Amino acid sequence: MIKIFVQNIAVKFSQSIDTHRKMNQYPYIGFILFLSAVPLCFPNHKPHSSIHMDICGHCVIAPALRREIRSYAPTVQRIIDSIVGTDAPFAGDTWRSCNDFVDKFGPRPTGSPALAHSIAAVLSDMRDAGLENVHAEPVIVSDFWERGHESAELLQPFRRQLRIAGLGTSVGTDDGATGIVADVLTVETFTEFDRLNDDVVCGKIVLFAPQWTTYPDMLDYREHGAAVAAAKGAVAVLVRSLTPVSLGLPHTGLVSYRKGIPKIPAAAVTVEDAQEMLRLCRQGRRVRVRLQMGARTVPGKRLTHNVIAELQGSRFPAAESVCVVSGHLDSWDLGQGAQDDAAGAFAAWKAVEYLRRLGLRARRTIRAILWTDEEQQYAGVYQYREAHRHGDANEFNFMMESDMGTFEPFGLELWGSSEAKCLFAEIVQLLRPLNVTELREPAESLADVEVGWKVRGIPMAGPLSRNERYYWYHHSTADTMQVVDSGDLDRNTALFAAVAFVVADLSVNVPRK
Amino acid sequence: MIKIFVQNIAVKFSQSIDTHRKMNQYPYIGFILFLSAVPLCFPNHKPHSSIHMDICGHCVIAPALRREIRSYAPTVQRIIDSIVGTDAPFAGDTWRSCNDFVDKFGPRPTGSPALAHSIAAVLSDMRDAGLENVHAEPVIVSDFWERGHESAELLQPFRRQLRIAGLGTSVGTDDGATGIVADVLTVETFTEFDRLNDDVVCGKIVLFAPQWTTYPDMLDYREHGAAVAAAKGAVAVLVRSLTPVSLGLPHTGLVSYRKGIPKIPAAAVTVEDAQEMLRLCRQGRRVRVRLQMGARTVPGKRLTHNVIAELQGSRFPAAESVCVVSGHLDSWDLGQGAQDDAAGAFAAWKAVEYLRRLGLRARRTIRAILWTDEEQQYAGVYQYREAHRHGDANEFNFMMESDMGTFEPFGLELWGSSEAKCLFAEIVQLLRPLNVTELREPAESLADVEVGWKVRGIPMAGPLSRNERYYWYHHSTADTMQVVDSGDLDRNTALFAAVAFVVADLSVNVPRK
Repeated sequence: MIKIFVQNIAVKFSQSIDTHRKMNQYPYIGFILFLSAVPLCFPNHKPHSSIHMDICGHCVIAPALRREIRSYAPTVQRIIDSIVGTDAPFAGDTWRSCNDFVDKFGPRPTGSPALAHSIAAVLSDMRDAGLENVHAEPVIVSDFWERGHESAELLQPFRRQLRIAGLGTSVGTDDGATGIVADVLTVETFTEFDRLNDDVVCGKIVLFAPQWTTYPDMLDYREHGAAVAAAKGAVAVLVRSLTPVSLGLPHTGLVSYRKGIPKIPAAAVTVEDAQEMLRLCRQGRRVRVRLQMGARTVPGKRLTHNVIAELQGSRFPAAESVCVVSGHLDSWDLGQGAQDDAAGAFAAWKAVEYLRRLGLRARRTIRAILWTDEEQQYAGVYQYREAHRHGDANEFNFMMESDMGTFEPFGLELWGSSEAKCLFAEIVQLLRPLNVTELREPAESLADVEVGWKVRGIPMAGPLSRNERYYWYHHSTADTMQVVDSGDLDRNTALFAAVAFVVADLSVNVPRK
Repeated sequence: MIKIFVQNIAVKFSQSIDTHRKMNQYPYIGFILFLSAVPLCFPNHKPHSSIHMDICGHCVIAPALRREIRSYAPTVQRIIDSIVGTDAPFAGDTWRSCNDFVDKFGPRPTGSPALAHSIAAVLSDMRDAGLENVHAEPVIVSDFWERGHESAELLQPFRRQLRIAGLGTSVGTDDGATGIVADVLTVETFTEFDRLNDDVVCGKIVLFAPQWTTYPDMLDYREHGAAVAAAKGAVAVLVRSLTPVSLGLPHTGLVSYRKGIPKIPAAAVTVEDAQEMLRLCRQGRRVRVRLQMGARTVPGKRLTHNVIAELQGSRFPAAESVCVVSGHLDSWDLGQGAQDDAAGAFAAWKAVEYLRRLGLRARRTIRAILWTDEEQQYAGVYQYREAHRHGDANEFNFMMESDMGTFEPFGLELWGSSEAKCLFAEIVQLLRPLNVTELREPAESLADVEVGWKVRGIPMAGPLSRNERYYWYHHSTADTMQVVDSGDLDRNTALFAAVAFVVADLSVNVPRK
């Protein structure tokens, strides 16, 4: 780090000397340019008028802007006090509303009547809450997936039911009640699999049983295991569920097929079963499984909707420099989709409701967007982006999303320019009353908004929370309101409300990347 | 406590005065009797020759016996050093043997071929290990239970599969593919249920969804919920699984029917589903479920066996003052029966093997008994007790069992007389190198030996371990070798070996109750 820094100074210095020589007919200008390159820390290439980061990584903020940000402290405190704590008027309200919603509609997979009904209900609730411009924007989903009945049984070396969760978009086993009966070949890694000859794999059910490291590291096995195995003639694929901790629970998620490679049935097994079959195979014993999956992709198009509600800005036009707060309403078909992502979606839109109730109208519009179809095709975010592509290029100022669980928040994760980081280093200090103090950059888990607007350089952020248990429940029947803590949900809602209000009300936009 | 103590002194004092008056013709004898009753702490009614507890609860141990117990410290250290720690020659051996066993035979319910084969395999392993008097003792089990296919579906207010575990001995739903379709009535407690009229209950599926307190407190709902509900006309019963923590996992266990009350199908549901249905019912919404259970009790008798192996005593005859170490080999049909109780059974018998390998032959016989049918009818222990009823009344000196998981041990739980407690207060001090220091009395979880020999006053003990997670896995598919820690299993094995050796070798028997 230091070395690079010294080199940078040296380069800049020699460049400036060079410039000085070339410009010797304008000695004063050359001298001024030289001086401007000499200071201990050079200014960044893209200085912002009131905020920038110098090449030492130090934030330089105009004192007026710093004072302005700090002046929001009493308002932020007021927002927090209204949502968090036993005496807060809105305490527990987000959880109760989310619980009513979740218990009423249950799981909300793309294409299901439950999702359609749940969207209608939220629209109605938003209108009742007095939000503005409440409406649904249409999204067309093609070829939606149905799980159907599924089961698996260990046939050898002993008989036992295996609990599975077919992976989203997986094909079924086709042949009715019989299913696929085949020997299981178990490997821990793709590297191990790559060493196997096709004739060893051909006709087998391949089980990928990687040791848990991190979700992103293991995702390849769930997403691409089927294609990798099918390329060598496997008849089906099983994947260890993506969780560090298990109590016999399988976790679903998407599988991606590859063109030109046969689509084979793909299901997650529990950590326990994966480990057991791995041990059995390593002992040289024959492991035989029957797999039955009624999964199918239903051709045709279905209509679903993103849900939008606003608290419109007092100064800026409704569709300029909008601050988006968001989560997604759809879920997998297992569990209730409570942490993923009803709670995130409710934290987002209830934050806007509470701001309205507190009479806190910012200069810019705060828009809650509850995405549809996040889990399967991101159709909601893609079609929303298309629909808003031709509008004012400045429609969006800043976007937030919660899709990693609403556990106890301790920070913000940000994706944006170095100037945006400097701005948020100040804003996050306002959140101390929430014990939210950390700023992490770049953000790694901003689902929809990341997919949709990173390419356009829109700055975005989400809560960082103590979500070590998130993958315990993720995409499984254990994702219910049982695992959503009401107080933590309040803290996430308050975080949404406070950040959205400050960002939407500031005299400056969040600098773009 | 103090009050009772003072009253006791007063009674004893007045009794002694009375005795003194009656015995005034023998003034010295009266005086001596009086003196014997006066000391600050009176001796207990049943003084043991070398050990007793005074009425203050203080242990009085003959110095010679105390010295004798303490002289075992180097031997206990040697036992521990041979089993526990990375360099110990037997370290990890118990886990590997147990894992081979569990992976080879899988679940071992009463009546299953797997149980029969697993018993034969352990007998063979015990012979290979050089144990003595290795044999199986026959046990007849009547009317064994089969789970069959089972499923449940929430039909209203939305459709979702429910994960269930039919309870052991439950009847099935009889009517083939249709199963039982009925509205669900959910209550938290028997008290709440008692207030309901029969016509409210009649025709319903009753769900008992008590809040978790302790296993013994909640056991009534699983065991007797069916009879309680059927008495008011319920058509089936669902019970919240008995665990403090759940990831969508149902836990089986026994249900008991009552004479004269119809037998209705009984199944455990997950904590999540129980809580959700409770919330839905509390919201006044109609909850409707389809329950299908192919469970049946197969009439007729089957033969199974207890497994016995010994390290015979050097002084006492083989069948006198025997020290028993035990666990059970059978399991429920879900999971692998690893913590419940393969690991406990292996800790018991491998302890005997390691003593033999160390050349440590105690004066009394140490006998490993691996019970059969603990989970269902305790047929193993009852028939063993019957078979050994007519032998020498002194056949057993002391019994141990592990059936609460082989987590990190920190103490011993004991059931026995106050003298036995005093003896074990000394013995437990030998276990400090294992970080085993606590002595808890009376023991509460000594399954088979408690059922069999408490009535005969035989002192008994078992390991106390940090088993807070035991019920997370108990009677479920999550009970696999994944949750058995090899180092902790070594510590339990060492505890068995050390305690059994010292007790079997001491100059005194453990005092009876």
